[in-house]
Parts: sequence; C-alpha cells; structure tokens
Amino acid sequence: MEEISFKPERSQYVYTFGGAKPVLTVKPGSVLRLWSEDAFNFALQSVDDLPSQKVDIRYVNPQTGPFYVTGAEPGDTLVLHIVDLEPARNFGASSTIPFFGGLTSTDRTAMLQQPLPEATWIYHVDSKRKEVGFQSRFGDLEFSMPIENMLGTVGVAPPGGEVRSSLVPERFGGNMDTPEMKVGTTVYLGVNVEGALFSIGDGHYRQGEGESCGTAIEGAMNSVILVDLIKGNAPMWPRLENDDYWMVVGSSRPMEDAWRIAQVESVNWLSQLLGIHYMDAYQLVTQVSLSPIANCVDTNYSVVTKIPKKILPKASAFDGMHQRLCDIAKLVK
Amino acid sequence: MEEISFKPERSQYVYTFGGAKPVLTVKPGSVLRLWSEDAFNFALQSVDDLPSQKVDIRYVNPQTGPFYVTGAEPGDTLVLHIVDLEPARNFGASSTIPFFGGLTSTDRTAMLQQPLPEATWIYHVDSKRKEVGFQSRFGDLEFSMPIENMLGTVGVAPPGGEVRSSLVPERFGGNMDTPEMKVGTTVYLGVNVEGALFSIGDGHYRQGEGESCGTAIEGAMNSVILVDLIKGNAPMWPRLENDDYWMVVGSSRPMEDAWRIAQVESVNWLSQLLGIHYMDAYQLVTQVSLSPIANCVDTNYSVVTKIPKKILPKASAFDGMHQRLCDIAKLVK
Amino acid sequence: MEEISFKPERSQYVYTFGGAKPVLTVKPGSVLRLWSEDAFNFALQSVDDLPSQKVDIRYVNPQTGPFYVTGAEPGDTLVLHIVDLEPARNFGASSTIPFFGGLTSTDRTAMLQQPLPEATWIYHVDSKRKEVGFQSRFGDLEFSMPIENMLGTVGVAPPGGEVRSSLVPERFGGNMDTPEMKVGTTVYLGVNVEGALFSIGDGHYRQGEGESCGTAIEGAMNSVILVDLIKGNAPMWPRLENDDYWMVVGSSRPMEDAWRIAQVESVNWLSQLLGIHYMDAYQLVTQVSLSPIANCVDTNYSVVTKIPKKILPKASAFDGMHQRLCDIAKLVK
Amino acid sequence: MEEISFKPERSQYVYTFGGAKPVLTVKPGSVLRLWSEDAFNFALQSVDDLPSQKVDIRYVNPQTGPFYVTGAEPGDTLVLHIVDLEPARNFGASSTIPFFGGLTSTDRTAMLQQPLPEATWIYHVDSKRKEVGFQSRFGDLEFSMPIENMLGTVGVAPPGGEVRSSLVPERFGGNMDTPEMKVGTTVYLGVNVEGALFSIGDGHYRQGEGESCGTAIEGAMNSVILVDLIKGNAPMWPRLENDDYWMVVGSSRPMEDAWRIAQVESVNWLSQLLGIHYMDAYQLVTQVSLSPIANCVDTNYSVVTKIPKKILPKASAFDGMHQRLCDIAKLVK
Repeated sequence: MEEISFKPERSQYVYTFGGAKPVLTVKPGSVLRLWSEDAFNFALQSVDDLPSQKVDIRYVNPQTGPFYVTGAEPGDTLVLHIVDLEPARNFGASSTIPFFGGLTSTDRTAMLQQPLPEATWIYHVDSKRKEVGFQSRFGDLEFSMPIENMLGTVGVAPPGGEVRSSLVPERFGGNMDTPEMKVGTTVYLGVNVEGALFSIGDGHYRQGEGESCGTAIEGAMNSVILVDLIKGNAPMWPRLENDDYWMVVGSSRPMEDAWRIAQVESVNWLSQLLGIHYMDAYQLVTQVSLSPIANCVDTNYSVVTKIPKKILPKASAFDGMHQRLCDIAKLVK
Repeated sequence: MEEISFKPERSQYVYTFGGAKPVLTVKPGSVLRLWSEDAFNFALQSVDDLPSQKVDIRYVNPQTGPFYVTGAEPGDTLVLHIVDLEPARNFGASSTIPFFGGLTSTDRTAMLQQPLPEATWIYHVDSKRKEVGFQSRFGDLEFSMPIENMLGTVGVAPPGGEVRSSLVPERFGGNMDTPEMKVGTTVYLGVNVEGALFSIGDGHYRQGEGESCGTAIEGAMNSVILVDLIKGNAPMWPRLENDDYWMVVGSSRPMEDAWRIAQVESVNWLSQLLGIHYMDAYQLVTQVSLSPIANCVDTNYSVVTKIPKKILPKASAFDGMHQRLCDIAKLVK
Repeated sequence: MEEISFKPERSQYVYTFGGAKPVLTVKPGSVLRLWSEDAFNFALQSVDDLPSQKVDIRYVNPQTGPFYVTGAEPGDTLVLHIVDLEPARNFGASSTIPFFGGLTSTDRTAMLQQPLPEATWIYHVDSKRKEVGFQSRFGDLEFSMPIENMLGTVGVAPPGGEVRSSLVPERFGGNMDTPEMKVGTTVYLGVNVEGALFSIGDGHYRQGEGESCGTAIEGAMNSVILVDLIKGNAPMWPRLENDDYWMVVGSSRPMEDAWRIAQVESVNWLSQLLGIHYMDAYQLVTQVSLSPIANCVDTNYSVVTKIPKKILPKASAFDGMHQRLCDIAKLVK
Repeated sequence: MEEISFKPERSQYVYTFGGAKPVLTVKPGSVLRLWSEDAFNFALQSVDDLPSQKVDIRYVNPQTGPFYVTGAEPGDTLVLHIVDLEPARNFGASSTIPFFGGLTSTDRTAMLQQPLPEATWIYHVDSKRKEVGFQSRFGDLEFSMPIENMLGTVGVAPPGGEVRSSLVPERFGGNMDTPEMKVGTTVYLGVNVEGALFSIGDGHYRQGEGESCGTAIEGAMNSVILVDLIKGNAPMWPRLENDDYWMVVGSSRPMEDAWRIAQVESVNWLSQLLGIHYMDAYQLVTQVSLSPIANCVDTNYSVVTKIPKKILPKASAFDGMHQRLCDIAKLVK
C-alpha cells in the first residue's frame, strides 16, 4: 500500500474544482496524509480580525489537490474513505460576513436592509479533552463543546469543461458542508474527467446542520484518506456510506429541490440494493429515511438523505467497498 | 388530577383548525386519554383499496377535538405533553395518491406529466415485538420494522378568524408531520382564541423525515396527553422540548423559509435561555443545531431546528415546565 | 337588468374569504355599483401616519361583500366583468411596513436584520388629468404619474369550510394584486359554496408588477361590476379575459410554482380553446405567452400567464361570455 | 468606425463563458456582423429528428466568440447595442427534451414520473411577411406567427477563474433568454477579466416569457452589434436599456430571488438616476416597474425588472450611451 503525505505550499492552494493542474498522481489503493488550510485562508487569527478587512474573497476555501487518480476515466466511481481527521492548529475561527449566511439577506436573497454586525469568534482547541472553547463576543459566556471534525469540501473536476469555485456544492461534490463527511465515511463520486482530479479542504472542528451563519468552526486539518476506484457505475450525485447509513447528498435551490435530488437518487439506489421496484423503494424511503439539512448558505443548498441499514434487509453497496476500506483503515490509522 | 377519556363518534370528527365547536372543556393539569382515527378516515383497509376510489378528500385527516382549555386566552401558551402513544388498530396503511407527495408533480408544483402508479401498502402491527410488517406491492419482499409512534397533527385554532384544513402546518401547529412529536415530548403553542381549541390526530406508526410519498404508516392511535397552560409568553412558532433538545418547527414554502423560521425562532429562544446577545446565539445555533426536515409534502413544508441541551450550559425553558410534566407523566402512564 | 348600489358601513367590512354572512343577494345579470375602503382601512391619511402606530393588523384589506349569487352552486363558474373603476377619494397612500414587502426580510423569509425605515407616501389624485402626485419622503422630488386603477382583491369563499384572510391569494382568487384586474377585464372563478359568496376590495390607483414594497397606491374605490354565472365548467384557478388576452393567475410559493400553475392551466385552456393536443398547446404557450409577476409580497406569490389572442387562430372562451359582457358594459357605463 | 464580419467554423464554436481563447480582438466603437449557429447545433432539421437521438448534450448552445475588447479591464462596463437581428436560415426548431423544461420534472426538480413525450416542431421562415409557420405535431393545425428575433445568450467571462456552461444565466449575463434582448436594446455588462471576452448566440426567432418547454424557436442568426466600453462603473448584474425602459436581469433560484436581485439593482439604479434616497426609489419601483419572467427553465431562472422612462422624470444612464449608440445604429444598419 502506497502512502503519500502532502502539505501544499501557499502558492499551490487551489480555489476551484476543475481548471487546475494536478499536484500529484495517486494510485487506487493509496493512503493520503493531507494538510489543508482553513476556509478563511488563515486570515482570521483573533477576534479583532474582521472578514471585511482581512479576508480576500478571491482566496477563500483553499483546496488541497487536485490529485490525479491513475486509471480514472469519465463514468468511473472515485472512492474516498476518511480514516482520520485531526485539527492541525490550536484554534478554529468562525465569523459573520456582511450579506453572507442563512439568516441574513445575501447577494441572491437580495434585500434593502443593512447587514448584520460583523464579528469573529475564536475557538481554542483542547486536543486532550477533544473540545473547543466558545467565548461570547457580545457578553461574557464561556464554555466548551465537543470537537466533531469534518471536511466541508470534497470533490472532483466537473464535466463539460466547467470550472467552479470551491464554494460551490454540486453533482461533483464540492462544498457540501455536511457533518456526515467525518471519520468512518466512504464517499462515492462520479468521475467526469480523466484522472478524476479530486481535492479536499474546508476542515470544520464542528458544524451544526445548515451552517447557519455561513461559517463553521473553520480550521486547518490533517486528513488521512484512502483512495480507491470502481470502474464504471458512476452515481449521478455524491453518495456516502458509513457503518449505519447509505446516504446521498443533493445540492440545488430552492431547498426542496436539493431534498428531491437526494431522495430520488436514494429511491433508485435502494431499489438496486434490495432488488425491488422503484415504487416499493419510494414507500420504504418514505418510512425510514432521515433528512438532515447540510448547508443553507452556499451557492447551492445541500440536503442529505440517510437510509438506515439496520432496519432494512442486509444489502451490499458497490460490492462491499465500504467494509473493505474500513478493514484497511484499521491497519492504517 | 382530572382524567378524561374521549373517543369521538364519526360525526364528531373535525377536519379543520378553527371553525368547530369544542367537544369538551378541559382544565390545565388534566390528563386526556384520546382515540384518533387515521388520516385516510379508515378508507384503506386492504391493498386493494386505492385512494382515488375509496378516500373522500373532504374527509381526510380527521381530528379529535377541539378541546376548550379553561382560562386560555390569546397570548397565553398552551402546553401539551405526550405521555403515551399506542396503535389503536392492528394495521396501518400508506399509499401513493395521484399528484400528491414529494417526488411527484402536484397541484402546486404543477407539471404536464402523468401521475405515478397508485398503490396501497398495509402494515400489520406486531404489538409484542413493537414492529410493523412491510410487504412489497410490486414484488415479494417482506420484513419487519420497529414501530415509532408519533402524531402528525397537533394544533390550536388560528388567529384572525381563519379556519384552516387539518392538512395545513402553520404557526398554530397543525399537520407538521415531524417524528419529534413522540412520547416524552412537550409542545408549546401560542393561544390565538379563547379556550385555545386544540385538537390532535394523524397518528403514524412510523415515518421517515420528509414523509416522501405523502403518507406515513397511518393508523388509529390511543394517545395519553397532559394539558397545561402558561399565562402569556406565547411563542411565535410551535416549540417542542424533550429531555435532550429544545426544538422549533417552522412551516412555509420554499423549504429554506421553513428552515429560516425555525432558526430565527431558535436564535431568539437560545438568546433568552442563556441570557446572551442574539449574535452570540446565532453563532451557537450555527455550530450546534440539528436541522431535520419534517415534511416536504404538505400545504407548507416543515423543518425542525433542534438545540442539544447536553453540550450547552444548563438552562430552563418555561420555568421547568417540561421536567415537571415528565415527573407527572411517570405517575400517569 | 337589475342595478344594485352598495356602500358598506364600517361594521359591515369583511376581512376574510368565507366565514361571513352575505350582505346582499344578487342575480346573475346584475350590475353592481360598489364602494370599497382602502387596504389600510383609512388609517393612513398623512405622511405622519405610520403603519406601526395607526394600522390595526386585524382590520386590514376590508372587503365589500360577500354577495350571494342566486343559483350559484359548487362546480359552477362565477363571472365578474369590471365595467368601471374610479378613485372614491382624493388621495391614495402607500407605506413600508416593518418586515413586510418584497425587498425586506419577513415573518416567513425570516432573518436577523433590523427592519427598513418605516414611511408613508401620500399621492394626491388629479381626477381631471387622471394622475397621482408622487412626493419624495426622503428628499424633495415631486412629479405626477398616470392613474391606472385596479382591484387588488376579487374572490369567492374557499372550499372545505376554510376561512382565509383577505390578504391571501389562492385558487378562490383573493388578494392576487395583479394590474390586469382593471376596466375591461372579465374574471372567471370556480364556485366552491352555494351562492359563491364573492367580495371585492383593495383598490389601487396604480401598482407595478410585483407590488415590491408590499403596498400599492391604496385608495377607496368606486367599482361598477357585471355579475354573471355559467353552470358548471369551474376553472381550477382564476381565469381572466380582456379584448387582447386569455389569462390565468397562479398563486403559491416558491414563485416558480405560481408560474407553473398558471402555465399548466393555460396549456389546458389553450388545448381546449383550439381543440389541440396538450403537447401542441405546451409548444404554443412556450412561444407566445407573457408572464408578468403580479405580487411577490403576499401570503402566496402570484404570477399571470397571458395568451395573446391576436396571433393565434380565432377561438371563443366560455361561449363568448367576455364579448357579451363588453357589449352590456357599453350600455351600463 | 471599424467593421468586422465573423462567421465561426464549426471547430471554433465555444460552449462556455470563460475558458476559451478569444477568436478576435475588437476595439470599442466597432461594428460586428456575426453569424451564430442555433442552440441545437443544427441537429434538428426535421420533425423526425428527436433530441435524444440527434442532440449531443456536450455541444449545445454554441457561442460566437469570445471577443477580446481592447482596453477592457475588470470593473469596466462592456456595452453592446443590438443594431439588427435576422434569421440566417429558412427554418427554426423547437423541441421537448426528456426531463428538460418548465412543466416537467428535471434533474433538479427531481421526481419519479415518466418523461413527457419527446417531439420536434419545425417553423418555416417567411422572411417577406416576417412570419414563422406553426405546424401541429399531434394534430393538423397550421398557422403563422410574427417573427420577433432575439438573442438568448449574451455574456462575458465570469470572475474568479470560473468557466461556466453557455446554458447558464448569471451575473456575467449568459443564457438569460429574455425577449428584451432584441433590436434596439443596449446591454451593459460588468467586465471580470482583461478583454471582457464576450460572446453571443442562441438566436430565437420568437420566444414567450418563461420559455416554458425549454426551447424557443431556435435558429441560426445574423446579428449586427455595436461594441463600446465605459471605464469603471461595472453594474453588479446585467442592465439593459431601450428607448422605453431601463432594465435589470436577475438570475437565480428560487424565482423570487431572481426577482429580488433585479429589483434591488433597479432600486439602486433608479436612486442614482434620479438622485433620490433608496427608500423613495423603492417606493417608485413599487408603483411603476414591470416584472416579466425571462426563463424558468435554465440553470438559473431569470426575471427582468423594467422601469418605464416615460412616466418618470427625465434621466440619463451611463452618460447618454444608449442614445448615442442608437444614433450610430441608424448609420450602420
């Protein structure tokens, strides 16, 4: 098993899916140990750093990658398994950016009102207790919360020659901002271009569902990731799997369309997994699926459909790929 | 403590919130033991019963109530605690109704396509194992799933003299269709008219988040409910509380607006619970809230915001009402 | 031909569709001369009158009616033709109401921002020149604009025993706020209850498409209206006809659903008018229909589909009803 | 005045905004005589040509361009004036593509229903009468409709290194599909990259508002276009001007957001044009603006806000640019 460690230079950061040369070539079966910068590009280091003064909007959400996967061709399925995620810095940051977020007017949900107050919160990492510390910015409340590491952004190059900002969640994955992208999760992405050209980034030390104010507890991250490839079988939308759930992430606007995408793809997947008619799968998805919102702040909104494995008949997705990667992960970690 | 048992005659079923005379007067502090008919009004009793032939759209989602609560005035807060829910029949039913549901065009998301196939699924109740049995309608798969009883509909009379169909989820509660409306949950609803005039119904033996096909496992239900009243303090939108979460249910379209409602109300509630500035509350909701979709099929879509109690500083909502009702519930059950 | 003049007492104003006793019974073929109060209930009489201080939200958008139409039964088509509209007062008012309107957050598109400034604009009516005068509230610009009278609200009682606020646009018509509701327009509404129970109100001396700030130039209105009845043939959604267009008004959220409703109903109508397949009608609607937004501020958003008669083969809707009423209108005016 | 004629080879067609090398360099003040292929890339030439068999989705909506405009820098305003549009072929085509269009489920508004019937309509051009002929595909109706030429797509390269499909309408213009893009219209687009890199295409011989079925009467087009440049002053969203209206095109989802964008930009523009406070501009836009839907079928939906010049005080946009180009156009045509 090949192991590759990679920490990009600042000049190697990438801000798009598509449109960038690969930084490395990796073989299916490899283990990647990757470092990624935070979504603010390390511009917010104290509560006095305000986004409008410090953040350069051209250089947000820097990605580590893209990686060229040997043998990956359009129509194939790129498989990534998250073995480990660890904060790579002793603090994370969150902030309210003028006219960005879920509970403010934006450049899209455009209104005439004044922006909300701008502010930055710094969360100190207690790696022993696996906690981050909240400090009120408009009062004096302080307390600690559990760290729950995740990656906001995992994606491949889009089809049709498109190049998309790393802020976008779409069919190609990207900035889905779902807390399900955590240790133990296997991600399946349809390959659109030769080599797949995947990248990752946007580490969160913790995030609620919806990412309401627009920014999670953003932090540099050390990620350990297994890479694999399935010839053909490309899913239409990103699929996730962990020990408990089969999942699909839909991304669009309005939010009901993101949900519909995740649901229709789940109906089709469940139909295939259990060998049943799509109407029976529709019925089962109705009675068993969970539907957490991932983000309601990005260029597209993302919604996850989760199908619980335990209460359904046993089935195997992608020929048992998830279990196989879990077994390897135990050796790697 | 006053105990009242009530099973409505068919002629007493009510199909609206508002516009109906109370069937009973109850005092705050009472225990109600209520029977409610299923949402199809018992029209689907076998897989051969199709909605278009058997269901009379004028008489769907029959409610048990309304109940006049002594002393309840506009601006007060009606409190209902769900002590127990038990299937009142040995089967539940679900069906696909032409042009109704989340993954089909509807009278609102109007399109020119043909409807999906119409079908009815019957789920037999195994009350010992607490399971319902799924039987494929387009194949031969059979298996059992855990029962997870909930009430689709809990609401009070709306303000402004409006009378709304029992299919509607709104500020007054109604057909919110959230799996959170289960045993152990306390519901807080703003009172709009004298006596509050609340009613309940739409029992589900189980439902996924979103209620994708439009109908859960619909079944007659025996509900045990504690009724209480808080003078004043009416919340803008329905609030729920259980041992683990403070919750708000927002209902509107598009779905992002339902989410925004639940989030803004949660920010305001959390700000009050912890005595913090709304911007700090916005930040905390961002990092800790869960956002499960309740339904994406009703007249309004409903989304829940859940604030986990455990990871936040200790706080008490509505003067500890939930804990008090839990204590009483133990004696009642 | 029966002529009825009616000016309601303040105590007779009605604030809902459904739920009110008829003020008068009228026969099909009658001419009604009606006076209606403005949507603010005459609360804003000078620029110093601010909505938050003067407007009682329980008593907005007062309707003149409801009228019981002899012989009208569910499934019939109520026909109203607008013969004349004249300002009944020498000024109209518009205002920005906190958290109400299209370019502000609202109770539905809920956000955390502060409200926009509250202000009232008074427009003086120059009935000779048929103009209203704009006076800047935050500067000193003054000029006159043409009066273009319309009725914001025309509707019947809803089905299913529902009672809806007069602020709501829906299948039953109501607060559609389309500038197409002007002199020369014939309205077709499906009857839901015996007698139809229609009412009108919400006179506008002028309104842009969208009614952006939430209030048009609101003014008391004298309306002359022909009433007729077609047995059966109830349209699903409000249809309008003038000399140039066949029109449908769809009302829902999000706005694309309002558009889809108006379009699907137009495809079906055009298919029937020209005796063509629905796919050919879809193709024609694609190439010829106009799609002005009516309102983007009410409980539902409303969008109009307009099919131009001139460029299509000659066809007659509802057996030539519009032409017949235009002929009568000439005699009445 | 420099005149440039350009008809691209098939190999020169471009399918994106951004990501392509310029085909020509043009100076501000130039006249361009451009030929553009139809959106189907000439794949539909008879009613027997069905999209699923003939259209290659990778090669739809071919653009003529991009053109590098001398001196154009980010922050500048590219100005294009449409002098003339003439069909470059004797027929146009429209078709229903499976799961594409406004009155069908799509890959975004995902549902489980079967697609609508696929069909192609061919419209013969009668250039003398300026008419296209409709021929029913599911019956025998035939008649002629006036030609109303327009360009579906006009845009510049996007910012941030993005490359977007030519099917997308956005801030950079693109596939806005508004019938306002016709002879006599001046377009103002913010420049994002050096040289602006604009292109045009997607000629329509006629289109209704909304482009319901997803395709207008698509045809090859000869366009005469004046190119000019304003240093600085880049508008946030595409602005259009003709003799009667100042216009803004907003593009997003859901449709109310497209409307909000166009409205807020119009409020800001009108505020600047008349030198008035934004709240007075909000009030005026409320009472005078027209809001036709442009498309409800593309990646983003587009809505136009039109401010009528005639009823407002005289004002001049961009230093009288539109009038100046109209004067030049008379000489060119």
